[in-house]
Amino acid sequence: MINTTVKLIKDGSITTVPGFLAGSSHCGLKSTSKKPDICVIYIPSGSVCSGVFTTNSFKAAPVLLNKYLLEAGGGIKAVTVNSGIANACTGSEGLENAKLTQKITGDAIGIAGQEVLVASTGVIGTQLPMDKLEKGIKECASSLSPEGGDDAALAILTTDLVEKKMAVSVTLEGGKEIIIGGIAKGSGMIEPNMATMLAFLGTDAGVEKEVLDGVLKEANEKSFNSITVDGCQSTNDMVLFMANGESGVEIKKGSSDHSRLLEGASFIMAGLAKKIVMDGEGATKFIEIKVKGAKDDFEAKKAASKIANSNLFKTAIFGEDLNWGRINAALGSAGCDFDPDHVSIEIGNITIVKDGSGVDDKKKQAEKLLKDKHIHLSVDLKKGKGKWTVWTSDLSFDYIKINALYHN
Amino acid sequence: MINTTVKLIKDGSITTVPGFLAGSSHCGLKSTSKKPDICVIYIPSGSVCSGVFTTNSFKAAPVLLNKYLLEAGGGIKAVTVNSGIANACTGSEGLENAKLTQKITGDAIGIAGQEVLVASTGVIGTQLPMDKLEKGIKECASSLSPEGGDDAALAILTTDLVEKKMAVSVTLEGGKEIIIGGIAKGSGMIEPNMATMLAFLGTDAGVEKEVLDGVLKEANEKSFNSITVDGCQSTNDMVLFMANGESGVEIKKGSSDHSRLLEGASFIMAGLAKKIVMDGEGATKFIEIKVKGAKDDFEAKKAASKIANSNLFKTAIFGEDLNWGRINAALGSAGCDFDPDHVSIEIGNITIVKDGSGVDDKKKQAEKLLKDKHIHLSVDLKKGKGKWTVWTSDLSFDYIKINALYHN
Repeated sequence: MINTTVKLIKDGSITTVPGFLAGSSHCGLKSTSKKPDICVIYIPSGSVCSGVFTTNSFKAAPVLLNKYLLEAGGGIKAVTVNSGIANACTGSEGLENAKLTQKITGDAIGIAGQEVLVASTGVIGTQLPMDKLEKGIKECASSLSPEGGDDAALAILTTDLVEKKMAVSVTLEGGKEIIIGGIAKGSGMIEPNMATMLAFLGTDAGVEKEVLDGVLKEANEKSFNSITVDGCQSTNDMVLFMANGESGVEIKKGSSDHSRLLEGASFIMAGLAKKIVMDGEGATKFIEIKVKGAKDDFEAKKAASKIANSNLFKTAIFGEDLNWGRINAALGSAGCDFDPDHVSIEIGNITIVKDGSGVDDKKKQAEKLLKDKHIHLSVDLKKGKGKWTVWTSDLSFDYIKINALYHN
Repeated sequence: MINTTVKLIKDGSITTVPGFLAGSSHCGLKSTSKKPDICVIYIPSGSVCSGVFTTNSFKAAPVLLNKYLLEAGGGIKAVTVNSGIANACTGSEGLENAKLTQKITGDAIGIAGQEVLVASTGVIGTQLPMDKLEKGIKECASSLSPEGGDDAALAILTTDLVEKKMAVSVTLEGGKEIIIGGIAKGSGMIEPNMATMLAFLGTDAGVEKEVLDGVLKEANEKSFNSITVDGCQSTNDMVLFMANGESGVEIKKGSSDHSRLLEGASFIMAGLAKKIVMDGEGATKFIEIKVKGAKDDFEAKKAASKIANSNLFKTAIFGEDLNWGRINAALGSAGCDFDPDHVSIEIGNITIVKDGSGVDDKKKQAEKLLKDKHIHLSVDLKKGKGKWTVWTSDLSFDYIKINALYHN
């Protein structure tokens, strides 16, 4: 996907984008660590902002508040993110605390509370300690800097082992460049406990709301919405994409530059999504599952997701066991329209299933590929033109350890 | 559910039913054990037979063959079951071997091959060694006996640790009794590898096909179709219910005895289903999830299943961790119609979530209940009158061990 239009910027993050500042602090929400647990991203010139949110019926207070604000259509100048506590299932007190977080942030950096979005990730059902938060936000405000993206990437982590940040430059048709940068967290597609996948993206392109909404939605569908660690869905998931226009470039709807913005956003969002899977709870393998030949793209995604969420498939990959029967069984339970006697499956470029049955002649070579950290699985349903790619991790002893012993 | 109509018969199995014989043998399909791996159930007087089968697109050869035979509507006199090899994803050779199994069985006990059903469970993608099978079936035929049910219950096991067998007597309206007995296997709702949930039930009542089909379908929906170990679905799942009429009693459609037959069948099938969950791969807990107040029964089942299949919920129960946020998160991702601010959740009879948020005052008592082997979870969606109960097990280190290291 990387090409001459989209270029990776080494060690980039959201503050690589001109006009994006960030400040972080440790205010005591993560009691067992001295790492930063709160950050403020500040865009002094303001930004157009698009957001996509969890579809879970239990939506965390920050999700409810941001959805309301973005639908109301105001400009956004800041985002305050805390880790350690999710502010989910916290009732009216939780919603008041989210609004108070807006106000404290606005006061601390001299903007209106309405111009601030909020995000939280951590334990469900606990109220935010607002005194600690206030102290933290003030420290964030006083440390705002164009180099603050790295610490912000740390501040939003929970069970994550590594930070996820990225930036690219995108060359537009006329030769001008825009920057897109972002940070993300997540160690499962969701862990509702230490909750959630969060991503914050910025660009210095000028983009009208409708175009930005469309780009975010399309790029999100093939990136963050195409990963799974454990098939669970959080109460707090959120991706925000902010465009401040600092580059002086306006992206026109339907233009070639519109496509290039989508290309750049897709690249960076897929990159961050893969980093989340690689850091999946207990993950020892990164698994790419490509399904083609489905009736349509929707069915291809359904089939790929069914395999990706099969505990039996995931444990087989963990055990480096060429157990293709489990792939067939998962595929067959997806409810997709295909003829099981025509299906073929490859690992790397080695065919392991042909016409629905196992192929043994290159078994040794296929087994060898399972020793790699990256596993590439391709499934051809031989039915239509639908295709989709899903990324997932394996299911290991450490997943159980992390999730069974978390509160203890 | 047990009452004066339905009475448990101690140590009963399928051969507790008058007119049902069984014989077993070790023919070498399970190479690592000397336990029986093949059995024949024989009903000399013949039986009306109903079956329900996996909906997986990849259907094992025995599933395809039995479906065809039952739809064609012939009487059934025998069922041959092997463990160790699933005869799934084995193409036309697999189907020929299933037919050959019929023929060998028919020849061995002197009936037509068409009167024999077949079932297999074990590794996917391997062909049956027909010479071993032939030797085994002949040994089964020569050991047929009305005490053979216990060995048959052993012969159908794969990763199961214990056999599952049960029989009840059902008192009919006029005071006469009928017997229903059965055996089952399964250590996951499915493990497509050592595959499958199988159950074989018999009764000495005389039941016409239409009534038997209805009873099996209804009792199955609330028993075997309401359990899950790992959310995966097999290529080989099968439940057969055979009625030979030996008691001289005819069950009339719509009669009070029809209801009593359903009651007895439901009791025995729920009992066998629970035994499968308790023997779930790596299971340390038996979890009952009751959802009420759903829009309808379908939504109640959807909600209960979503919780039951959440790896995060299952690992929390394994860790005896009162992590109700994971229950909320699973519930919220089920796509059911309810107001999250009205939901209440109980463990045992202790409320842990009220109006969608956590209740802390009896936390210690609730945590104590999590130390039990049996966990009872009740969810009230406060929306309508739909209700359903699902049974599941926890997700432990041993599940990973069993499934990651199976082939090695």
